[in-house]
Amino acid sequence: MSEGKLTGAKVAEHNSKDSCWVIVHGKAYDVTEFLPEHPGGQKIILKYAGKDATEEFEPIHPPDTLDKFLDQSKHLGPVDMATVEQEEKEFDPEEADRQERISRMPSLEACYNLMDFEAVARQVMKKTAWAYYSSGADDEITMRENHAAFHKIWFRPRILVDVEHIDMSTTMLGTKCSIPFYVTATALGKLGHPEGEVVLTKASHQHNVVQMIPTLASCSFDEILDAKQGDQVQWLQLYVNKDREITRKIVEHAEKRGCKGLFITVDAPQLGRREKDMRSKFSDPGSNVQSGGDNIDRSQGAARAISSFIDPALSWKDIPWFKSITNMPIVLKGVQCVEDVLRAVEAGCDGVVLSNHGGRQLETARSGIEVLAEVMPALRERGWEKRIEVFVDGGVRRATDIIKALCLGATGIGIGRPFLYAMSAYGLDGVDRAMQLLKDEMEMNMRLIGATSVAELNPSLIDTRGLLGGHSGVVPSDTLGLRAYDPLEAPRFNEKPKL
Amino acid sequence: MSEGKLTGAKVAEHNSKDSCWVIVHGKAYDVTEFLPEHPGGQKIILKYAGKDATEEFEPIHPPDTLDKFLDQSKHLGPVDMATVEQEEKEFDPEEADRQERISRMPSLEACYNLMDFEAVARQVMKKTAWAYYSSGADDEITMRENHAAFHKIWFRPRILVDVEHIDMSTTMLGTKCSIPFYVTATALGKLGHPEGEVVLTKASHQHNVVQMIPTLASCSFDEILDAKQGDQVQWLQLYVNKDREITRKIVEHAEKRGCKGLFITVDAPQLGRREKDMRSKFSDPGSNVQSGGDNIDRSQGAARAISSFIDPALSWKDIPWFKSITNMPIVLKGVQCVEDVLRAVEAGCDGVVLSNHGGRQLETARSGIEVLAEVMPALRERGWEKRIEVFVDGGVRRATDIIKALCLGATGIGIGRPFLYAMSAYGLDGVDRAMQLLKDEMEMNMRLIGATSVAELNPSLIDTRGLLGGHSGVVPSDTLGLRAYDPLEAPRFNEKPKL
Amino acid sequence: MSEGKLTGAKVAEHNSKDSCWVIVHGKAYDVTEFLPEHPGGQKIILKYAGKDATEEFEPIHPPDTLDKFLDQSKHLGPVDMATVEQEEKEFDPEEADRQERISRMPSLEACYNLMDFEAVARQVMKKTAWAYYSSGADDEITMRENHAAFHKIWFRPRILVDVEHIDMSTTMLGTKCSIPFYVTATALGKLGHPEGEVVLTKASHQHNVVQMIPTLASCSFDEILDAKQGDQVQWLQLYVNKDREITRKIVEHAEKRGCKGLFITVDAPQLGRREKDMRSKFSDPGSNVQSGGDNIDRSQGAARAISSFIDPALSWKDIPWFKSITNMPIVLKGVQCVEDVLRAVEAGCDGVVLSNHGGRQLETARSGIEVLAEVMPALRERGWEKRIEVFVDGGVRRATDIIKALCLGATGIGIGRPFLYAMSAYGLDGVDRAMQLLKDEMEMNMRLIGATSVAELNPSLIDTRGLLGGHSGVVPSDTLGLRAYDPLEAPRFNEKPKL
Amino acid sequence: MSEGKLTGAKVAEHNSKDSCWVIVHGKAYDVTEFLPEHPGGQKIILKYAGKDATEEFEPIHPPDTLDKFLDQSKHLGPVDMATVEQEEKEFDPEEADRQERISRMPSLEACYNLMDFEAVARQVMKKTAWAYYSSGADDEITMRENHAAFHKIWFRPRILVDVEHIDMSTTMLGTKCSIPFYVTATALGKLGHPEGEVVLTKASHQHNVVQMIPTLASCSFDEILDAKQGDQVQWLQLYVNKDREITRKIVEHAEKRGCKGLFITVDAPQLGRREKDMRSKFSDPGSNVQSGGDNIDRSQGAARAISSFIDPALSWKDIPWFKSITNMPIVLKGVQCVEDVLRAVEAGCDGVVLSNHGGRQLETARSGIEVLAEVMPALRERGWEKRIEVFVDGGVRRATDIIKALCLGATGIGIGRPFLYAMSAYGLDGVDRAMQLLKDEMEMNMRLIGATSVAELNPSLIDTRGLLGGHSGVVPSDTLGLRAYDPLEAPRFNEKPKL
Repeated sequence: MSEGKLTGAKVAEHNSKDSCWVIVHGKAYDVTEFLPEHPGGQKIILKYAGKDATEEFEPIHPPDTLDKFLDQSKHLGPVDMATVEQEEKEFDPEEADRQERISRMPSLEACYNLMDFEAVARQVMKKTAWAYYSSGADDEITMRENHAAFHKIWFRPRILVDVEHIDMSTTMLGTKCSIPFYVTATALGKLGHPEGEVVLTKASHQHNVVQMIPTLASCSFDEILDAKQGDQVQWLQLYVNKDREITRKIVEHAEKRGCKGLFITVDAPQLGRREKDMRSKFSDPGSNVQSGGDNIDRSQGAARAISSFIDPALSWKDIPWFKSITNMPIVLKGVQCVEDVLRAVEAGCDGVVLSNHGGRQLETARSGIEVLAEVMPALRERGWEKRIEVFVDGGVRRATDIIKALCLGATGIGIGRPFLYAMSAYGLDGVDRAMQLLKDEMEMNMRLIGATSVAELNPSLIDTRGLLGGHSGVVPSDTLGLRAYDPLEAPRFNEKPKL
Repeated sequence: MSEGKLTGAKVAEHNSKDSCWVIVHGKAYDVTEFLPEHPGGQKIILKYAGKDATEEFEPIHPPDTLDKFLDQSKHLGPVDMATVEQEEKEFDPEEADRQERISRMPSLEACYNLMDFEAVARQVMKKTAWAYYSSGADDEITMRENHAAFHKIWFRPRILVDVEHIDMSTTMLGTKCSIPFYVTATALGKLGHPEGEVVLTKASHQHNVVQMIPTLASCSFDEILDAKQGDQVQWLQLYVNKDREITRKIVEHAEKRGCKGLFITVDAPQLGRREKDMRSKFSDPGSNVQSGGDNIDRSQGAARAISSFIDPALSWKDIPWFKSITNMPIVLKGVQCVEDVLRAVEAGCDGVVLSNHGGRQLETARSGIEVLAEVMPALRERGWEKRIEVFVDGGVRRATDIIKALCLGATGIGIGRPFLYAMSAYGLDGVDRAMQLLKDEMEMNMRLIGATSVAELNPSLIDTRGLLGGHSGVVPSDTLGLRAYDPLEAPRFNEKPKL
Repeated sequence: MSEGKLTGAKVAEHNSKDSCWVIVHGKAYDVTEFLPEHPGGQKIILKYAGKDATEEFEPIHPPDTLDKFLDQSKHLGPVDMATVEQEEKEFDPEEADRQERISRMPSLEACYNLMDFEAVARQVMKKTAWAYYSSGADDEITMRENHAAFHKIWFRPRILVDVEHIDMSTTMLGTKCSIPFYVTATALGKLGHPEGEVVLTKASHQHNVVQMIPTLASCSFDEILDAKQGDQVQWLQLYVNKDREITRKIVEHAEKRGCKGLFITVDAPQLGRREKDMRSKFSDPGSNVQSGGDNIDRSQGAARAISSFIDPALSWKDIPWFKSITNMPIVLKGVQCVEDVLRAVEAGCDGVVLSNHGGRQLETARSGIEVLAEVMPALRERGWEKRIEVFVDGGVRRATDIIKALCLGATGIGIGRPFLYAMSAYGLDGVDRAMQLLKDEMEMNMRLIGATSVAELNPSLIDTRGLLGGHSGVVPSDTLGLRAYDPLEAPRFNEKPKL
Repeated sequence: MSEGKLTGAKVAEHNSKDSCWVIVHGKAYDVTEFLPEHPGGQKIILKYAGKDATEEFEPIHPPDTLDKFLDQSKHLGPVDMATVEQEEKEFDPEEADRQERISRMPSLEACYNLMDFEAVARQVMKKTAWAYYSSGADDEITMRENHAAFHKIWFRPRILVDVEHIDMSTTMLGTKCSIPFYVTATALGKLGHPEGEVVLTKASHQHNVVQMIPTLASCSFDEILDAKQGDQVQWLQLYVNKDREITRKIVEHAEKRGCKGLFITVDAPQLGRREKDMRSKFSDPGSNVQSGGDNIDRSQGAARAISSFIDPALSWKDIPWFKSITNMPIVLKGVQCVEDVLRAVEAGCDGVVLSNHGGRQLETARSGIEVLAEVMPALRERGWEKRIEVFVDGGVRRATDIIKALCLGATGIGIGRPFLYAMSAYGLDGVDRAMQLLKDEMEMNMRLIGATSVAELNPSLIDTRGLLGGHSGVVPSDTLGLRAYDPLEAPRFNEKPKL
């Protein structure tokens, strides 16, 4: 037995609700009193009572979690891991299949566009992680509409423009970026990759784009800041806590550490129901353990488990307070109609993100790009288009999507899931390639449209009539008629070779 | 042989048209003279002549049927069931498959939305029962359009509204309800569950919503009333009998027993052809044996068999008579264009239900929600929107559907089939969960839209442009071209693992 | 050897182009000189040179063909059929499969609508016959649009109308009919049934509807006339021959035999290419052998083979001549835009049929029902709606389709293929049931719409906005995105029963 | 060893980057110094270092390539091929499958329309060749829209027009053609057929249509010119070289050799990314080796490899220069909005081709036919419709497509891929039949529309409302609802024959 270390046997004695010890990263902790406060519920902790919980704990808690939320008196010190009984894992056929698929993964070079990363990630990610990232609200209609909406906008390119030199750089909230997209905030990065959000930090640096840091990150906020290089710029995405003091500390800390924008999420007074996520039976808590209580329904999936601290009472009245506590530009993330954009201007906000939260909140909410087409003419009509920066996210997969948003008048375009998928499947190299593919597409497409700089992109280059009719449907098919129809056939190949 | 009881052998002697006895619930009845009057035809009774018919009789006749329709002299008294020969049932592979599926049913907790109950019910219900509930008119285009129509309406949510406290209660016909939906009338509840409509009565009580009692219930009207608890409110749905005295008795009895609304069905002078139902070869009569005669075509499915008493001559001229016989509010159920809503106001009706009878009557009739969008502006234009309560039903599956109807101006939203499916698959617990899911969705979605009460829901929160173009179709596909097209592929996984 | 009869051996000697005899119905004919004149080509005759050709000849030639087109000197007299060598038929696996399917045909009672007959016919008809009936022009887009167009028109029914008594009779070209549809002309009835068009004659009589007799019938014109019963009314459909004297004789003969309407086909100066038909390798001639010549491409399918006599030079200048040779009302069949309807009025025509020839002629021609919506307002604007009767055909499968046309203002609705399919699958009983189903649907749907007679059907009962946008398409799908999407799933059934 | 010839062994010694010889058509060449200049990259050459490269070289280099680009001193003279070691080819299962399919190819007569050739070609072409021809930009939405757009335009045909004589000839850039389509320029003809573009030259002569000669042909320009017969007319498609002197020489040579039109491609400052092509791993260089350098990414597919010489700086300023160096009519190929057509008129161009490069360049660029509908009214409004000839290409598969373009006002219609597919599958006979099929369709459809000459085709004959709404989409489906729906079924056939 190693000196001064606890034995596995000793820890194993504390395997009940009455006395519950767990091992994390080789150290033991007494979590008996913490049990009822765990946002993810007691059940998942008790499963590991008296045992090593590292593997389960790791992906969804920032490393500073135990220091922050567990009194030092409960830190029991190192365990002689050699004495801890190894549990034999039950054979999981789904996991075995996944490992087999991973062994046959396509090479990164075979990914030619952002959808390709998603197609690969779907096969190689853990089921619960995939469900958390890929799910949307209700029937996921809005989630899919987000990308589909771009297909309602078509180009009116100009020819015979000298497009030898293309400059696709732009400026967002005072920061010069190499290309007008940014990495938008998405939760629980370690579900997809052991290093979590810092992978995105590194890729953002490589490509000189801005990263928006999520409140619900797997990495700690400071870890993500620490990963910043050179004059790299980051923004903070903020879920506002019911306890405004916690929020104040977060904001002030972010500004001190150099964040250049405060994006307040306004489309999530309550996090959405995502049935795919719920069905995947994921019930582990997220990392951002801001509040306690065990009265949340644990069967509601990851999204609900990690968001109980969010304040549904947040309102326009809070905006002046935010302006009083920070000098960072204030941007409302999740604005969904022109009325609220105009109000944001009047409230003195510096920007809005037209977004429906990746289709994860309100079903049949309109896509950001559709709202953008509604918003910009109203701003121009009032001469207000310079008073506020209008960002948009949701469904962006191609440089053509980015260009359409720019033609309408967007300042910057947020991209979330595609980089998560690239990261989950291929790590930093994946995100790097995803960004490079977008840049390649962007350069080419600007050439093909006949614009040499972002400033030259304007509404006359697009045809938006497809948005005018709203969301029309198609008459349900007459099954009997369709099935009785005998479709035409191409020439049939012979059954045997001709001689 | 038990004292004073008939023997099975004795009953079995009366096994022909000339002398036909049947056993129901351990008692024998002489139905010889009743045979030609049976609305479901003689054939189905003769199949059980001299035998125990309980299993066939039970699900589709209210318990008071024999007392009501068979003279006491034909009640032959108890049978010594030990002496009744047990028939061996023929092996039915479809039924065996169904039982096997039932043994593997998903747990109730796995149902996350109203469609889930339907998906389960489809697998575990008897084929004929499923066909009766799930079928619609002709090609079932209207039936499907009813839900699809909601997808043409999209949200324009407001942000930064304090939505901590959500009040989703409302008032319909003077009754305060916890949420603006009610259980609409649907026929033959015992096809789905042995207890029939009283299951819905109990669930409605648990959730403080109104139940509308159907004329064509499997339970007797009084059974459903008796199941009422506390100050629970029920309404009566009425098919008007050719014999108005029968109708008068029904209405007066309902009012006396406390019903708070009279919903006169006006979209069914003749019950629709539902081919799925007809094809399922269901030919048993319904419970509401109001009229006799055997001249109805038995191959027309359940709907036609049970509805021969309905009066196709019902007209606007009858409305004053209804107003003269009852003080209950009078609501026309099945109104389908603005002209008739205006006429209903003028006729002094208290409400209308914009409905196409669940897509079971007239094919390519418009959905209730589409008619609502036509009706409300016309009412508002005349300042009549307070003179009449406008209900709507058909295709409601999500709280977002309910909210869209409320935004347009509906007072209440009827839901039928989803609760039948929940009941058929999981009984009372199923209906309870279905209602709870709707409440959970409703609370969340009102938050996400930025409305704290039903009164705050208004047309500016929705985009209804998708309804403007009517019902456009898509050009039939060019099969040859589509098949010759070689679709893009995602990266292929390798055939063998990399080494 | 029977006295006075030819032997099979004798006939078999004449088995070449130089001397070609064939046996039909037990008689021999010398067709050597006729060979080059055969509209269906020499090849198919030479296949039977010296042999019994009855089975091949029968379905596609009217019985008077040989008398009409072969000089009496070539009629060689009866053959002793006992001496004719029986050819063993090659085993045809497709035909064997078809016979097996026929043995398992659903009973007629299982057909609940007109599509059902088509579904059965597709399985039990000979491939070439099915291809001839079911094929359309080019990609068959117009053929399918014909039915789909009805789904763009939705109902605005009226409630509380006394609909106990429904009168669906109407008058077309002076003839009272029981219901406002007629049997429109379709070619080659014997492909579907050995008795050919007279089956339709009998069914039309049973249901008191008008039959339009086709120029290209399998039965002779007089056979069809002879099958008429009582005061049954028939019309003549006319393809105009390059030789106007032939046309004059046909018209005069039809009028003399009591035809009550002359429908001149104007949408077929050349019969369409129908690739399904061509691909089925059908190359036999039709019955109406009006002209000779062998320069037609035999690989063009049945339609082209039988239509070489049609005059592509037919023009408005011919109308006065038609008026001069007959007192029958003159109706132009195949009018496709409002301009030509107005011109028809001015030319003194009694009617038009808005039709695209069942989608068999010009691809992406509009449906008759769409043209009707264009035509009627223009007629009413000029007060001309009584000056001409407007018929419509194409894609009618449901009584709702008929009612929509009547609401728009049509006088009568032609139905073709559905009756052919009913006849092909079930003979006269099939057509009888098809017509009865339409009547049942019609009665019910008029009740549900709130109209008691054809006269009450009017434009306010329908919503035609779906026609306003023309023929819009849908953006081609993004395959990669769709395939990467992971669709929602219903609750999964357990793999094993719960214990 | 044959006298004066090199031996295989000798050549095989030079099998490295330092000394690299290859054999082509029995002659050896020293390409050591050329290696870095090869547009297709060094790798593909080095694969054949010291070996016979004929089979690889042949399909994608014009025969004069070596003479043009390799100094005579590097031409090492004939090789005694008997001494060259034969490499055994590795068994390629995909190629074996293809050969098997070729052995069962449908006969040419089974192709009834242009799609049929595509369906056959897809099965019998080499994968890389198929990928190069069939691929489009990004998600290939525009590529498919090109054909689909024609389905948004429907006909309004006129009846009773004497259409016995149809004249479908027309005049383009002063040349009388038999029918208003031309063979548009497409690259790398030898991928599909060993003879390459001259096959199209021959077919164009047979049918009296114009051929546009591509810059990126597999055959040399002069070979294609040499194949011209009689007064056959050809045009030149031009990619403009960064080195204008090269361009000048090409233009002057073309004019001298009799080309009658100069089509300057303006929609391709950079050749598009075609992922299907890239995925097929095709990396061989095209024939038109105008510039060197090895800095192009070889994984970008054929399109990128062969186009590095194209000048992205080409602009309106270059037009006067072109007018100064040639008397050929100047046509801009790839114009995509009305503004640029008007500018082309003002710049003195003789024509424009409304085209998106077959959907191979900018994704969600509008189809040529849609742009045509935008352009012609603007030209007519200004009275400019005679000042410029408007051509259109993209997605043309049917004569109806051609006729729609003519009705809108097009002078001529370009067809590319369909002829490539016909050539690839069936050689000259295939192209011949494809053209004949179009002529047959054209003649028939003009009859059916009621137009006897191209001049009679006008906008009143078509309904273009389907284009007005832009590119609308459909709401994404609700998977759960759709899957829970139980579709209607046709009558079921019995399991066993009836007795």
